[in-house]
Amino acid sequence: MSDTVKYVLDEKDIPRHWYNIMADLPSPPPPVLHPATHQPVGPDDLAPLFPMAVIQQEVSQEREIEIPEPVREVYRQWRPSPLFRARRLEKMLDTPARIYYKYEGVSPAGSHKPNTAIAQAFYNKQEGVKRITTETGAGQWGSSLALAGSLFGLEIEVFMVKVSFQQKPYRRSFMETFGAKCIASPSDMTEAGRAVLREHPDSTGSLGIAISEAVERAVQRDDTKYALGSVLNHVLLHQTVIGLEAMKQFDLAGDYPDIVIAPTGGGSNFGGITFPFLGEQLRGGRKIDLVAVEPSACPTLTRGKYAYDFGDTAHLTPLVKMHTLGSTYVPPGFHAGGLRYHGMAPLVSHITDLGLVRPRAYQQTECFEAGILFAKAEGIIPAPEANHGVKAAIDEALRCKEEGVSRAILFNLCGHGHFDMQAYRDYLDGKLVDQEYDESEIAMALAGLPSVA
Amino acid sequence: MSDTVKYVLDEKDIPRHWYNIMADLPSPPPPVLHPATHQPVGPDDLAPLFPMAVIQQEVSQEREIEIPEPVREVYRQWRPSPLFRARRLEKMLDTPARIYYKYEGVSPAGSHKPNTAIAQAFYNKQEGVKRITTETGAGQWGSSLALAGSLFGLEIEVFMVKVSFQQKPYRRSFMETFGAKCIASPSDMTEAGRAVLREHPDSTGSLGIAISEAVERAVQRDDTKYALGSVLNHVLLHQTVIGLEAMKQFDLAGDYPDIVIAPTGGGSNFGGITFPFLGEQLRGGRKIDLVAVEPSACPTLTRGKYAYDFGDTAHLTPLVKMHTLGSTYVPPGFHAGGLRYHGMAPLVSHITDLGLVRPRAYQQTECFEAGILFAKAEGIIPAPEANHGVKAAIDEALRCKEEGVSRAILFNLCGHGHFDMQAYRDYLDGKLVDQEYDESEIAMALAGLPSVA
Repeated sequence: MSDTVKYVLDEKDIPRHWYNIMADLPSPPPPVLHPATHQPVGPDDLAPLFPMAVIQQEVSQEREIEIPEPVREVYRQWRPSPLFRARRLEKMLDTPARIYYKYEGVSPAGSHKPNTAIAQAFYNKQEGVKRITTETGAGQWGSSLALAGSLFGLEIEVFMVKVSFQQKPYRRSFMETFGAKCIASPSDMTEAGRAVLREHPDSTGSLGIAISEAVERAVQRDDTKYALGSVLNHVLLHQTVIGLEAMKQFDLAGDYPDIVIAPTGGGSNFGGITFPFLGEQLRGGRKIDLVAVEPSACPTLTRGKYAYDFGDTAHLTPLVKMHTLGSTYVPPGFHAGGLRYHGMAPLVSHITDLGLVRPRAYQQTECFEAGILFAKAEGIIPAPEANHGVKAAIDEALRCKEEGVSRAILFNLCGHGHFDMQAYRDYLDGKLVDQEYDESEIAMALAGLPSVA
Repeated sequence: MSDTVKYVLDEKDIPRHWYNIMADLPSPPPPVLHPATHQPVGPDDLAPLFPMAVIQQEVSQEREIEIPEPVREVYRQWRPSPLFRARRLEKMLDTPARIYYKYEGVSPAGSHKPNTAIAQAFYNKQEGVKRITTETGAGQWGSSLALAGSLFGLEIEVFMVKVSFQQKPYRRSFMETFGAKCIASPSDMTEAGRAVLREHPDSTGSLGIAISEAVERAVQRDDTKYALGSVLNHVLLHQTVIGLEAMKQFDLAGDYPDIVIAPTGGGSNFGGITFPFLGEQLRGGRKIDLVAVEPSACPTLTRGKYAYDFGDTAHLTPLVKMHTLGSTYVPPGFHAGGLRYHGMAPLVSHITDLGLVRPRAYQQTECFEAGILFAKAEGIIPAPEANHGVKAAIDEALRCKEEGVSRAILFNLCGHGHFDMQAYRDYLDGKLVDQEYDESEIAMALAGLPSVA
């Protein structure tokens, strides 16, 4: 009835290095370009936004990058995070599959986001920065940076996508409890925000707009930098603690994953759990089926174009080559706000382009259905973003049953749903509906892509 | 800046036995009486409410009671829970005190309540029970029993105090996600509820009323039993896993607490962390200062009368001798709903009467202020109930500073505040006000105490 199998690591097993996939890629990802000159950007171009240690990580080719001791110290509060074998779920599905999940909801912010928030706060503090600006969608990233800012004594200013600001007031309370400022975006605090409001006074916002606002506020002030919670190489790098721990835990289990699954919004959750395994494969180790799961209503990897695009709406960021729906595209307001981004991590796009990833998209109701099944079996209510991974894992487990094959399935349960109970309320009340992207709006946004030679 | 000190135990260190303080008390607590005859109740009197294994635990004198393996199996999902040294808080307070906290918010329901919910669900399932009824205040207990019911295949019916049902809709969603039924109390489903509604159609409910409803529903059906989340001996027994683990963790730390602090509503949180330490003291070990913290607006231990009283409003329960404000007293609707009970665990009342406990009461705003200070230092937002323990711990640490003495302070951080962000919102907006109990209402309720020879 209740056989909990938990693979626990000792504190000394918290990785001492992050893993940098750049060292093992068969070809490097296309360079990041300056928005005006379309020439590859150098460290100086990024210096107004990020501390130098972070910029160096962004372009590093070293396989292992040391985790600073003060960062490991904070990690120790909740790391190593547990790896569970989902035996009760396996029984419920009557599947021969071996389902494992890495649970990142044990962090004080309830998701994987502190893995990079702590690191970024540390590097900013070390370089004398006083204040960090950022954007947040569902609020998990903003909460994590608020927490990190509080621990390292930094002011945090969070532009929160307006639709989430209104739907998730408790996320704002969470950030403010840690002393952060939380502003609904688009706001009238920035030129980028005012421009949107002039044209669309009722704009519900988007991550692209919020990024513009946060970037604008950072470049205006010398003592202020900007932080991003996903997409960029250094963010994915910091998240590899997840996969590195999982590898050690599979050693304990005497098993190895055949399939690794993660929800994919900006790509840091996916990169965090898959890159260490993919690195093994690229260095001649066992081949793994990598599944990137995205919402059908924001189908970046499955319907987007692999092209150079801006990370934000106001076109303040450098150009990166990524799967994109167009930087001006505003996705419908579904509940998995963390997956509501027009673009994708360049590294995830690159390996998808290389054929190393199998992307797939799900509607939100089927994801919530899977999440509730999971909660009843395993006792944990997943975040709406995490439900996408749960759904794919259940589908793979059912495929095992159909084919009469036992495969080891690993997914990253990247966060709990404690701040998303309104979404569950809607689902339970039968009010949650699937949302469709607007083909013509995407086409229009893609038509506006910058032309890069 | 960030020196996390976490004392981690191995899975094999999850206790194999609960600790029963009855074996070590200098005198037994007064007997539980039948509500009609005023004679001590026997097992048969309690059989309509509880499974026999639980009834035996309620009256057992054995020092150690074995934890069934299937219960330990579920415990393994989150136990052993971590013990932290709050070094960042110590620095912030500039105190020579050594502050430790045991963190029970790591459970899937976010509080210590699953420690007993899992055990009670197991015993009910084992004895063929199909359905369990219960009441809940803030929702932490109802959520935990919903979780336990889901894992053991039992139907769960939760009567939730109406003011909390309305203030905390997400707790209801949480329970329903696990398949439980959640009913606002007073309801028209029971005679007890209807009686209240006839007299007070706008009643916001109380734990006493909700208990009456749950008990009534249980005794009406042969396949249904009742479960209580605090107060009774067996509940406090199950919670001793907290204190037993903490003792082992203090061994690791090479330290021993001088002061042990816990919030006190029904008493299970307090009993859970203190009884193993008190047992040591009673068997000739080191004397410890035990601090029970309650809300000033429901001051059971500090202002109540130590007398026989009913556990519920409709007087369906047996009579127990406890500190009480009178079973008909309805406390004001403050945010720490889990501490909003007119009575107290008979065991906690008994040891308080024996002079072994130092009770104290705090207003809610000072508790939230302490909670926010704690969050900023330690990264965890405590539940409003837990803030009472935080406040007392901070006060004791400041007393150490004043006196220039280093003492080891242990408190039970019994749950996180993820479902209580509205309370933090109110605090941050300056809208949270202290609430006073009504002296004359308490006097009236106490005047109605049953006269027991």
